[in-house]
Amino acid sequence: MTPPFPLPLPMRRALDLARAAEAAGEVPIGAVVTLDGRIIGEGENRNRRDNDPTAHAEIVALRAAATLLGDFRLTGCDLWVTLEPCPMCAGAISHARIARLYYAAADPKGGAIEQGPRLYAQPQCLHRPDVYGGIGGKEASALLRGFFAARR
Amino acid sequence: MTPPFPLPLPMRRALDLARAAEAAGEVPIGAVVTLDGRIIGEGENRNRRDNDPTAHAEIVALRAAATLLGDFRLTGCDLWVTLEPCPMCAGAISHARIARLYYAAADPKGGAIEQGPRLYAQPQCLHRPDVYGGIGGKEASALLRGFFAARR
Repeated sequence: MTPPFPLPLPMRRALDLARAAEAAGEVPIGAVVTLDGRIIGEGENRNRRDNDPTAHAEIVALRAAATLLGDFRLTGCDLWVTLEPCPMCAGAISHARIARLYYAAADPKGGAIEQGPRLYAQPQCLHRPDVYGGIGGKEASALLRGFFAARR
Repeated sequence: MTPPFPLPLPMRRALDLARAAEAAGEVPIGAVVTLDGRIIGEGENRNRRDNDPTAHAEIVALRAAATLLGDFRLTGCDLWVTLEPCPMCAGAISHARIARLYYAAADPKGGAIEQGPRLYAQPQCLHRPDVYGGIGGKEASALLRGFFAARR
């Protein structure tokens, strides 16, 4: 479904980062962190390039923003990502105290927000961002489908 | 309960790393990655020092081992950590394809293995390590209790 408004700039940037990841042979996923509407951290999937099992787009973006702010907590910041976060990334988003999480495509196989372990619905969870799914979902899904189809 | 055998060397090293973290003003948690019994990656909690919301001991150790091996998958490697992993770290351990997870103290508040979301029991989970809890639990719990008592 086409949303009734243009895609917000941070999600457009996250989609550009996903395309850059694909061009580098990585799974096409991108993420940005914003504070008061300005981008303060960016990330794309880098598992293979960096030999790093933790280098999902969200983790890369959170680390970049935290380095920039000089604080391991990103209180008041928002995260925009092209795919529903996995348990690792959902946990990192909570640790970082992200205020709002915007994601594009749902991930029935690996998502941890609105399916699977639903981490933010766990009573144990110390910090839950507000969650907005589906913004740019069509573009993000098409990117991922194209990537995996080309490798089958 | 004192186990009927000396603590394995990797867990003793993880406890030393936890003590080093505490001396640096961080939550006392340490982790090591082993391959065929040899330590190939070490980590201690570094959130505050590194301004990094993801810098839990496990993440630091996994990244170090993956850099050393030049592979984002640590197939056949084991991870030893002084506290039951949180959702972020449990997810990273799964992504890294760790074969065996040994942890010392259980974490009723933040653990994701044998309580809370029990990530490895989720049907969605793609890779589950074998899990061994309680090895060195007494020492690890005493370290954490001392740390938090001193800050109250």
